[in-house]
Order: sequence, then structure tokens, then C-alpha cells
Amino acid sequence: MPEAAEVFAAAQRLAGKIHRTPLLSSRAINAATGAEIFFKCEHLQKVGAFKARGAANAVQLLPGGTQRVATHSSGNHGAALAWAAAERGLACTVVMPENAPQAKQEAVAAYGADIVLCAPTLAAREETLAQVVARTGAHEVPPFDDRRIIAGQGTVAQEALGQCREQGFDPDLLVTPVGGGGLLAGCGLAMSALAPDVKVLGAEPAGADDAQRSFRSGQRVTEQVADTIADGLRTTLGERNFTLIRRTVNDVVTVEEDEIVSAMKLLWTRTKQLVEPSAAVSLAAVLAHPARFKGKRVVLVLTGGNMDLSSVSDLLG
Amino acid sequence: MPEAAEVFAAAQRLAGKIHRTPLLSSRAINAATGAEIFFKCEHLQKVGAFKARGAANAVQLLPGGTQRVATHSSGNHGAALAWAAAERGLACTVVMPENAPQAKQEAVAAYGADIVLCAPTLAAREETLAQVVARTGAHEVPPFDDRRIIAGQGTVAQEALGQCREQGFDPDLLVTPVGGGGLLAGCGLAMSALAPDVKVLGAEPAGADDAQRSFRSGQRVTEQVADTIADGLRTTLGERNFTLIRRTVNDVVTVEEDEIVSAMKLLWTRTKQLVEPSAAVSLAAVLAHPARFKGKRVVLVLTGGNMDLSSVSDLLG
Repeated sequence: MPEAAEVFAAAQRLAGKIHRTPLLSSRAINAATGAEIFFKCEHLQKVGAFKARGAANAVQLLPGGTQRVATHSSGNHGAALAWAAAERGLACTVVMPENAPQAKQEAVAAYGADIVLCAPTLAAREETLAQVVARTGAHEVPPFDDRRIIAGQGTVAQEALGQCREQGFDPDLLVTPVGGGGLLAGCGLAMSALAPDVKVLGAEPAGADDAQRSFRSGQRVTEQVADTIADGLRTTLGERNFTLIRRTVNDVVTVEEDEIVSAMKLLWTRTKQLVEPSAAVSLAAVLAHPARFKGKRVVLVLTGGNMDLSSVSDLLG
Repeated sequence: MPEAAEVFAAAQRLAGKIHRTPLLSSRAINAATGAEIFFKCEHLQKVGAFKARGAANAVQLLPGGTQRVATHSSGNHGAALAWAAAERGLACTVVMPENAPQAKQEAVAAYGADIVLCAPTLAAREETLAQVVARTGAHEVPPFDDRRIIAGQGTVAQEALGQCREQGFDPDLLVTPVGGGGLLAGCGLAMSALAPDVKVLGAEPAGADDAQRSFRSGQRVTEQVADTIADGLRTTLGERNFTLIRRTVNDVVTVEEDEIVSAMKLLWTRTKQLVEPSAAVSLAAVLAHPARFKGKRVVLVLTGGNMDLSSVSDLLG
């Protein structure tokens, strides 16, 4: 299980290799929510998602002699690993389901990784990845259930807290979307060490609410039929992630699909930031549960900005 | 005719009332263009457009006793004047053509201004505005052919130059989109005084190329049938604007519609900034005329980020 010190080590290791993304605020969104909101802009991170942090951290901690890394991913982790590998001169293979968004396939290819397509099931992805590893000797870098990845993603909270403190305050709350739980677990871990009074919340679609059910029951839910536009949040919690989240996170809240779309449109029109649906889930949580946030200083992590524009065009009317 | 000193005075007058918008760069776009590009992010300005600068400057320079301002606008100037008037506790009327984008009508209304709709012709707009002025005694604030407006918009160039100098360089070129010419004339005026070696270029759609024809012939074109997605650039050059542009601007280049759409998509996907079509015209100029920009340091003004999302959804495929 990763320790908070691994987050701090990751932050040092990543300095200069990733962006220190801005904290952004919007008077209109503050007025609409009655809260004082600070958006941590990870859609402006390398590869357009916080996933660059974990991938870059993992790639720098590889066993000596590693020449190729591999993973399976339908989205940003694949692009992030492809980027991080290329930066270190390593080869990379990404197993992707055939239905992965075109934009995300193109991103992986643009960073020079090999893509192996497979059927869109977890079983097919794992089996195909096992074959790749057997054939090529690649070192596997999992998307979230990995201490190097969790530590890397936790640098989001450390960095955001530092930016708040530069402005003279500690936030009351930090909210991240939760899919596999790498970001949430890492942020919970970092914040519990650095500022234990800051509440850390996870936010997830009601149509993929395994994290809330796991958190509240104490039993990790490992299967779900996800039904949500937030394509980055369809996975279930990893094992390490679940343990850390139970230990360091205050609650997991859910939001409806229409709330995700409203939050995304609000972000697009008011902040002019083109965030992907999964990233809008943290603001959706504030809109859906206003009493929990009213009058509070809240950091919301905008996790990424990668999507097929055509796939969301029918939401824009 | 405004003097450069009026730009500098406007900058002092506006300090603290408007945003000092960031300069943003993108490694991917630098690689795609072979230039070193610095986007001046006026879509992150108050009201989502540089127009806030001129409007705020004009409203602070009103004759004593003014209680109401008025203008005609299909777009950002109307919202900017409504905002600037509200900030000073003044009433405001905006004459808008019936076909003005819904998002822009809503923005004007949200700032508390009265809207008077009219037929979508320049004659109807001017006649309706004259009636409003006669009936209410409002002070008219024109959208671009006004020395207070030109001086306010010129603060974009002054501010961007200052930001470049903080980073230790002067740019080779500054490019702004050109419609009525308030921004281009103001930027030309400012730059010719502050850094005469920096070339200032206007960029406009080939489907609304009055500025290029005016610039190259020396005769101001006052009528055109504009055909372009860039709704902010359909107007013809104002008289003061034309005179200043001839005096301080190096050239006006045109771009095709497909180049505007490509530039907008590149901005959306690579920088995650939701800019409106008119704002993409400056990057389109670099894509359309690569030899003029290769190896150069170029400031491109992103002029605004306001649009009906539904109206561009058919471009996203």
C-alpha cells in the first residue's frame, strides 16, 4: 500500500516533466453554486489529463533494463503511458477495446505506441494484454491499482493545496471524480498527511456507482454494468484504491446524467474550458448537493479534456 | 483620431476592472506551424471577449450626467457595454438584430440591459438606435469607430507585449482578427509606439475581405455581402479604424472558411480552449500562410469565446 511519502517523492520526481496546472475560478459559477470554487485544471496537463502524472511516475520507477511498457486502456491512461514511455525512449504497447473513442486511439498512436485492438470486455483486454506481455517481455503498468500510479495522481492534491496556500487559505473540501480510484486514493492519501482538516470527496455517476456502494458497505463491488456518458468513470475500484479510499476519504457522492451534462455545459460556456464529461462530474456533485458546499471553499479537479467532439455534439443543442 | 497615449491611459484606467488575460502556448500547435505561438486569451476576459476593454474605457469617459448608454450590436460589444454600464450603475439599451445568436441575447439580458430587437440590416439597426437615443437621451457608444473604444482595445497589444517582455523577448508579429477594426487599429497604434519593430497583421475571412481590399487599394470599402462563419467579422471597417490601420498595420491577410474551422478544431482539441469562430481566424492565418510565420515568435489574439454551442455542433464531426 503506498504511503504519503511516495506522493511527495513523486512530486519531486515529476517537477519540470509535467505542467503545474492553473487553479481557475469563475465568478458566474461561484454565484450559481453559492460556493467559492477553485478548478484544478488537469485538462491542461500533458496529454490533456491528470493521467500523465501517474504514468510519468511509474515509468521513472521501472525496474532496470525495462525496454517496453504495456497496458490496457480505453482512454487517457493509454495516451499518458505512451507519452511517458516516449519521453524516456521506451517502447510501449496499448491494448485498446475496438470501441475506444477515435480521439483517444489517435492520441496513443501519435505518441508512437503500438496499439493492439481487442473486444470491448475486461476479460478480452486482460487476456490480450497477457499475450502482449508474454510475447514482448513488456513491463505492465496498470491504470490505477498500482502504488506508483496512485502516488503520481496524488500529486494533484499536493499541488492544489500549495496553490491555495499561496493565496493564503486552506480549502474546506477537495472533490475528484472516481472511476478506478487512482486519483481519489492518491488525493486522499496526500491530503490526510498534509492537511487532515480538508475533506476529500469522490464524485461518480449514479450509473456507475460502485465506489459509493463499496465505500458505504465496506465491501468492494467488483462488477457493474456502467451506464454513463462519463467514459472515464465506468471502471470499478481497484483493491489498493478501495483500501486507501476507505481510510482517507470522507464520502462518495453520486450525480445523475443530466447533472453531468449541465455541469459540462456550464464549464464550457462560463469558463471556456473544453473539459470531457468525466471531468464535469466534480462540478455536477456541487450542483446536485448544494447544501454540502454552500459557503465553502472547494477545489474541484477537472480531470481531462479529451473526447471525440462529434460524440458530444448532440448534447449541445 | 486617437493617439497612442490614449491607449496607455486606458490601460491605467482599466487596471483592476478587467482581467490581465494569460498568454498560452501549445507544443503541439508550435510543432504543427513551425512557429512559436503565444495565444493572448481574451476569451477569458470579462464577458468572454476583448470587447470588455473598449466598453469599460468608454463608459469611464462618458460626459458628466450620463444616465444611460446605448448601442447596436449582434454580439460581444452589446454584452460588453451592458456589463460595463452595470458596473457603473448606468442603464443600457442594446439594439440587436432578430437573428443575433441566442447566447449573445441572453448575455446582454443577464447584465440587466434592455434589448430592442430589429430587422437584421445595418439600416434598421441604425434607425432603431436613433429612435432609442431620441426617446431616452442615451449616450451612444459605437462598437468600433470611436476613439475611446479603439484606445481600450489597444490595451490588448500593450498587455501582451508586456507579458512577452517579462519572458525576455519581443515578438516578431502580432495578429488580430479584423471586423470593424477597433482591435486591429488599437493594437497597431499601441505597437507602433511601444515596439515599432513588431509587425502587426490583420486576419479576416475571404468571405468578408473588405479590410484587405481597403488596405491594399487605399480606398475604404463600405459595403460587402459577408459570407462567413466568423460572425464577429462581418462588419466593414470604420473610418477612424481604416486611417489608423493604414498608418500602423503591416498587412491584412485572408483565410478560407475551411481554414477557420480547422484552426478552431485545433484550438479546441489541443489547447482545450473553447474559442468562437472569429477568434480562430488569427491561427487560421498562420496555417494558411505558413511561410510568413515559420521560425517566428507570434502573438495571436484569441478574441472571444461566446457562441451558441448548437450552431457549431455540425462542424464537430
